[in-house]
Amino acid sequence: MTTGTKSTRAEATRARLAEAAITCFAAKGFHGTSTRDIADAAGISPTALYGHHASKEELLFIISLAGHQHALSVVRAAASREPDPMGRLIALVHDFAMHHAESHMSSRVVNYELEALSSDHRETIVGIRRQITATIRSVVDDLAESGCAHIVDRRLTARALTSLCVDISRWYHSELQSPEDIASVYALMAVNLVNAQPPASDRSSYLPSSRGGT
Amino acid sequence: MTTGTKSTRAEATRARLAEAAITCFAAKGFHGTSTRDIADAAGISPTALYGHHASKEELLFIISLAGHQHALSVVRAAASREPDPMGRLIALVHDFAMHHAESHMSSRVVNYELEALSSDHRETIVGIRRQITATIRSVVDDLAESGCAHIVDRRLTARALTSLCVDISRWYHSELQSPEDIASVYALMAVNLVNAQPPASDRSSYLPSSRGGT
Repeated sequence: MTTGTKSTRAEATRARLAEAAITCFAAKGFHGTSTRDIADAAGISPTALYGHHASKEELLFIISLAGHQHALSVVRAAASREPDPMGRLIALVHDFAMHHAESHMSSRVVNYELEALSSDHRETIVGIRRQITATIRSVVDDLAESGCAHIVDRRLTARALTSLCVDISRWYHSELQSPEDIASVYALMAVNLVNAQPPASDRSSYLPSSRGGT
Repeated sequence: MTTGTKSTRAEATRARLAEAAITCFAAKGFHGTSTRDIADAAGISPTALYGHHASKEELLFIISLAGHQHALSVVRAAASREPDPMGRLIALVHDFAMHHAESHMSSRVVNYELEALSSDHRETIVGIRRQITATIRSVVDDLAESGCAHIVDRRLTARALTSLCVDISRWYHSELQSPEDIASVYALMAVNLVNAQPPASDRSSYLPSSRGGT
């Protein structure tokens, strides 16, 4: 049992280190954060930190990888949850906006520290970002082809929808409005943005919050 | 004339230093950039750099101040150019999007390096940012009160319009589409976003590009 306890303790330290690194990177940027800042925030010595991670960049990669994998799972789940293209757009923007508000600190690190990654690590992350972009684009393509939206430029529409959600991580701190309130308004703005004209009464029925959790 | 020539030369060096600093900060972040990086990019010695600027932070403040003052002048001019609220929305998003595409490198520094400023300098910059936000909000308020748009949440609508434009500086590098093409599509998406319903044929007449430069 000693090995099990040891490995559990090591896992807990690594989780604490990742959390401390997210807080430091989000506040001061990767380059503005020293290894000592992270060790201090996690309550361990800088030497002990190196027992868990080879470098500050390795910690950034672990955070970036987990954040991007989570973001990809969020957009993929949303993009396949509803049977119709309009429902998929609403689910996508609602869930992606919610993700960026709820995880605003790690999202800030994930979106604004790509240049600090080593080239190998950046390549891995860029691969996941391409899958996120392709998922958002496929929702826009389905909408354009369904005829229920009037999309002038598919590429820029996908960019705009992404910007609405990603930029939340830049401006969201501790807001008056909850992530759910923001996500619901953003989903409705997205329906407007693609110039879709479903009956107004039908729009809110797509939102998870108005469905009693089903 | 010697003094005049000297001061002109000093001004030229300072302009070159600011340009070099924008390139370095945009690529590697403020903390990832050394004074030597900036001096090298400007083709002068680090010692000569300190003859012009007391610190790297002073250079960042000069860039941030100029960038924010320019952004404020862009939104103020756009917000007062058209006689009607819908025209002002279109002018605002068109010009603010265009600004972030054209000046994407300095806009990246301006929007993502606020934490690196000294507290006094940050206070000055935050004051200008509040004026930019208030200008955008006044356009949204006028629209909501005119009755020609259906705005559910004025604060989040102003946030969303800002995000569309600001986030361009994150994703814009050397794009297939020109700043003008992006700005025109974004202005039309903004009209949709506020759920306005002017006749489709009237919308594009608001755009500078379709007016023959008048």
